[in-house]
Amino acid sequence: MRGRLVPILAALQPIWLRRCFQTTSTLRSFSNQIIKSPSLLSLDLADSWSSTSKQSDSSPIQENTNNWTAKIIDGKAIAEGIRSRIASEVSRMKELIGQVPGLAVILVGQRRDSETYVRNKTIASEEVGFKFKMIVFPENCTECEVCNALCRFNEDPSIHGILVQLPLPQHLDEAKILNVISLEKDVDGFHPLNIGNLAMQGMEPLFVPCTPKGCIELLLQSGVEIMGKKAVVIGRSNIVGLPTSLLLQRHHATVTVLHAFTKNPEKIAREADILVSAAGVPNLVRGSWVKPGAVIVDVGTNPIEDRRSEHGYRLIGDVCFKEATRIASAITPVPGGVGPMTVAMLLCNTLESAKHAFNFT
Amino acid sequence: MRGRLVPILAALQPIWLRRCFQTTSTLRSFSNQIIKSPSLLSLDLADSWSSTSKQSDSSPIQENTNNWTAKIIDGKAIAEGIRSRIASEVSRMKELIGQVPGLAVILVGQRRDSETYVRNKTIASEEVGFKFKMIVFPENCTECEVCNALCRFNEDPSIHGILVQLPLPQHLDEAKILNVISLEKDVDGFHPLNIGNLAMQGMEPLFVPCTPKGCIELLLQSGVEIMGKKAVVIGRSNIVGLPTSLLLQRHHATVTVLHAFTKNPEKIAREADILVSAAGVPNLVRGSWVKPGAVIVDVGTNPIEDRRSEHGYRLIGDVCFKEATRIASAITPVPGGVGPMTVAMLLCNTLESAKHAFNFT
Repeated sequence: MRGRLVPILAALQPIWLRRCFQTTSTLRSFSNQIIKSPSLLSLDLADSWSSTSKQSDSSPIQENTNNWTAKIIDGKAIAEGIRSRIASEVSRMKELIGQVPGLAVILVGQRRDSETYVRNKTIASEEVGFKFKMIVFPENCTECEVCNALCRFNEDPSIHGILVQLPLPQHLDEAKILNVISLEKDVDGFHPLNIGNLAMQGMEPLFVPCTPKGCIELLLQSGVEIMGKKAVVIGRSNIVGLPTSLLLQRHHATVTVLHAFTKNPEKIAREADILVSAAGVPNLVRGSWVKPGAVIVDVGTNPIEDRRSEHGYRLIGDVCFKEATRIASAITPVPGGVGPMTVAMLLCNTLESAKHAFNFT
Repeated sequence: MRGRLVPILAALQPIWLRRCFQTTSTLRSFSNQIIKSPSLLSLDLADSWSSTSKQSDSSPIQENTNNWTAKIIDGKAIAEGIRSRIASEVSRMKELIGQVPGLAVILVGQRRDSETYVRNKTIASEEVGFKFKMIVFPENCTECEVCNALCRFNEDPSIHGILVQLPLPQHLDEAKILNVISLEKDVDGFHPLNIGNLAMQGMEPLFVPCTPKGCIELLLQSGVEIMGKKAVVIGRSNIVGLPTSLLLQRHHATVTVLHAFTKNPEKIAREADILVSAAGVPNLVRGSWVKPGAVIVDVGTNPIEDRRSEHGYRLIGDVCFKEATRIASAITPVPGGVGPMTVAMLLCNTLESAKHAFNFT
C-alpha cells in the first residue's frame, strides 16, 4: 500500500501548487505598483450565504516524501524590489516638490534585538532617501520624557512617520505612550482606531501594521491565493498575530487564531493551507504541525546564542525549517523572510503618509 | 457494533456536561452583580508558550441518540433577572442623586424587524425606570437630518446612551452616521475605536457591543466554560460576528470565523465546542454541523411569513432547532434566547454610562 502511495503523491504535488499559486499573469498586472496589496476598501465583498453547505476542496492528507523541498519565499529579494520602487518615488518627489518623507524612531534601552531592528530601519530609510531622526533613551527613562519627544515629532512637519521600537521596558505604559503618536503619523498602525478600522467591514485604516502587511505582500507576490483558504495564525499579539488574522480575514481566508490556551494546536495547525507563526517560540512548529502543500509564513525572530556569529547570537524562526520544508509547498526563511518585509512596509507606510501630507500623487 | 455503541454513548454524556459546565459555586459568587461578565481588563493573561504540543481533550465523534435533548438556555429568564437588578440600581440612583439613566433611539424607515426591536427596547427601557427618547425618520430622510438629531442627543446631559437602529436604508452612509455618536454615549459599542480596544490585549473598550456581550453572558450564566474551548462563529458582521469572535478570544477560546467564502463550513462547525451562528440564514446550521455535546448560541433572527402569527410573520434562527437539540448539550432558542439578552445588555451599558456620567457607584 505504501509503495503504491508514492507515485500517487508525486502526481498530486502539482495540484497543491496549482491550488496555492495564482498564474503569473496576475503578478504582471501589478508590476507598476510599489506593492501588490490591493486597497483594503476593495476587499469588502458582500457576504451572500446560502443554506446549502459548500464542498471542501481540501487535499487528502499525504505522507512526507523526502525528495520534496518547499519553495523558499525570498523576502529579502521581494523587499529589495519594493525598496527600489520606493527610492524611485522619493527621487520623483524630491525633483517635483523639493520634499522627502521623514521617519522618526524612538528606542528605549539596549535590547539587542531592538537595536538590530532599529539599525536595519535606519539603513533602509537612508538608502531610499528618507530624512531620518532617532532618539535613544536609557532603560530607566520616564514616560514623560518619551511622550515629550513624541509630541515634538507630532508637530514636526518634516516627519511623516513616527515609531516607538517595542517592547518597551516594563515600567513604561506602552498603550499610553503609543496613544500619544498622532494618528496621521502612526505608520506602525498600532493605534486602536487603526486596528478597529482594520477589523471592521466597510472601514479603512490609515495604515496597516507593517509586519502583517509584509506577510500578506509575501503571499501575494509569491502568487499564493488567500480567498477561501484555511489560515491559521499562531499567536495573538497586538503587533503581529491579531492584525495578521484580521488582514487575512479581509482577504477572505477562513481564519483560526491559536494561542497559549489552545488545546492541541498541532492538530489545528495541520489543517491550515496558510500557516502564519508569530508565537516567538523557537521550533514550536514541527513538521507534524504542517499540512502537506501548506504555505508557511514564519514571523518568529528568536535570538539564540551562537559564538560563531558576529554579534554572539543569531535569529531563528518559530518553525522547524528542516522538517517543514519537506512538507510545505512554500516557506519564508528566518532571517530573510518576513523581517526585510517589515522594514519595506514601514518605508511604504511612511511614503504614503508623506504623499498624503504633501498632497503628492 | 451499533448496538454496542449506545451504552457507551450514554455513559459519555455526563463527560460532555462536566466539560462544558462549571460548578454552580462559581455562579453563586457573582450573584450580587448585575451580570456575570468579568471586567475585560482582568482577561489579559500572559501568553506563555511552550515548545511541547498540548494534548487534545476533544471527545470522539458520536452518533445521534434520539432520546437526547439539549438543555434550552432560557435567555428570557436570564434577561429578566438582569433587568430586575438594573431596575433596583435605577431606583437607588434616583433615591440617592435624583437622576436616572437616559436612552435615545433613532429609527429610520419601517422595516418590520427594526420596529419590533425598537418596540422591545422602548418597553424594557421604561420598565427599568430609564428616561427614553425616540426619533423616527421616514425612509427617504437625509444623512444631515439624522446627524443633526444625533448631535442634539450628544449634547443632551440627560441622555447617556444613543443608538441608531440598524440596518439603515442604503442611501445613508452607516459608518459616517455612527461616527457622529459621542464615544461616551455609544452604548452599542460600534465605534471603530471601541472595536479596536475590544480586539487588543491590554486595552479596554468603553462599551462591549450588546449582542456579543449577551451571548457571552448567556454562556457564563449557564455555567459554560469558555477558556480553551474551540469556538466557531458563523458570520463576520461588524455588529455581531466580528465582536463576538473578539470577545470569545478575550475569554481565551480558540476562535474560527466562518463566512460566505469559507469552504466546507459544515466540517469546521462540527469541530466547535461552542458554536455561535450569526449568518442571518434560516436553518443554515443543520444537525450535521453540530458536534455532539456542543453548546449552540443562535443569534439569527430571521422573519418568515406566518399567517397564524399576530404580525403575519414569526422569527426563526439560523439553526435547525429540532435537529440541533438532539446533538448539542445546550442551545439558545429563537425567540427567547439572544434577543432578550441584547436588550438587557443595552440597558446594562446605558446604566454604566449614566453611573460614569454622574460619578455614581
